[in-house]
Amino acid sequence: MADPTVKTFDVIFEGTGTASGKMRNDIHVTWPMMKESFDLATDEGPFHGGDGTAPPPLALFTAALTGCLMTQIRAFAKRLKIDIGTVEVKARLHWTGEQVGNDPYVTAPVGFHLDIDLDSSASTADQLRLIAFAKKGCFIETTLMQGLSVGHRVKIDTDWHDA
Amino acid sequence: MADPTVKTFDVIFEGTGTASGKMRNDIHVTWPMMKESFDLATDEGPFHGGDGTAPPPLALFTAALTGCLMTQIRAFAKRLKIDIGTVEVKARLHWTGEQVGNDPYVTAPVGFHLDIDLDSSASTADQLRLIAFAKKGCFIETTLMQGLSVGHRVKIDTDWHDA
Repeated sequence: MADPTVKTFDVIFEGTGTASGKMRNDIHVTWPMMKESFDLATDEGPFHGGDGTAPPPLALFTAALTGCLMTQIRAFAKRLKIDIGTVEVKARLHWTGEQVGNDPYVTAPVGFHLDIDLDSSASTADQLRLIAFAKKGCFIETTLMQGLSVGHRVKIDTDWHDA
Repeated sequence: MADPTVKTFDVIFEGTGTASGKMRNDIHVTWPMMKESFDLATDEGPFHGGDGTAPPPLALFTAALTGCLMTQIRAFAKRLKIDIGTVEVKARLHWTGEQVGNDPYVTAPVGFHLDIDLDSSASTADQLRLIAFAKKGCFIETTLMQGLSVGHRVKIDTDWHDA
């Protein structure tokens, strides 16, 4: 028998963030391949010097991670023919920060946990198999799992410098 | 001279996601310590079986990463007394997916890049110093840098199973 077909594809999102307000950022996100765009924003509450006009970045991150896994659960349930009901996921994301003297603080993740209810009568084995596939298909989970150093450049006058 | 004071703090976000529509997820996010909550949602466009009623999870992720770094740039610029203008950041997030036969696809990050314009007359050294601190203070960047295996449990009947 011939090897199964292997297909690869790229997913590229672009964002342009502009600082506005005290701590608000307006971020225009595009998905060029799909010709889709989304106007999003982050802000901080008054305690952190903002005006609370939008969720803080970590709220968007929590929704992104939760929604990413849930989307793959539903997409892959169809493909694997595993019956599921109304999926509900409870997420808990825990970070820590450390500040020395008056220096800016340094952050680190402590642990992220997702509790999943598939509302399904499928066997335990099938439910576990579906979640295993969803974890490997969730772009955010596989990024966290692999780890990634974000690249930065800063524009000074007309030149770009690695930062 | 005594050692400088070291302070640590925890940041915990919680989310409850409920599947609705074809691919839509409604996600109620709370930041219990700050008594703040946010109603967010993700969806997919018709091409991916959704109704396009909300941005896809990766659009929220792009905004979260961009906004997180921008927030720390502004917060730490004040603390470090480095003058900045209207900060603008262009983000490019690139993932890949691979599908074997008709199996659910497997994803991986390729590279994330942020181009930063601080609109600043500060020295190159000061601008690079500010960005270095912002990278270490950005909860999302330090999570990506360190890497993290998300924990999962699935509820089957009344029992929780590790997944």
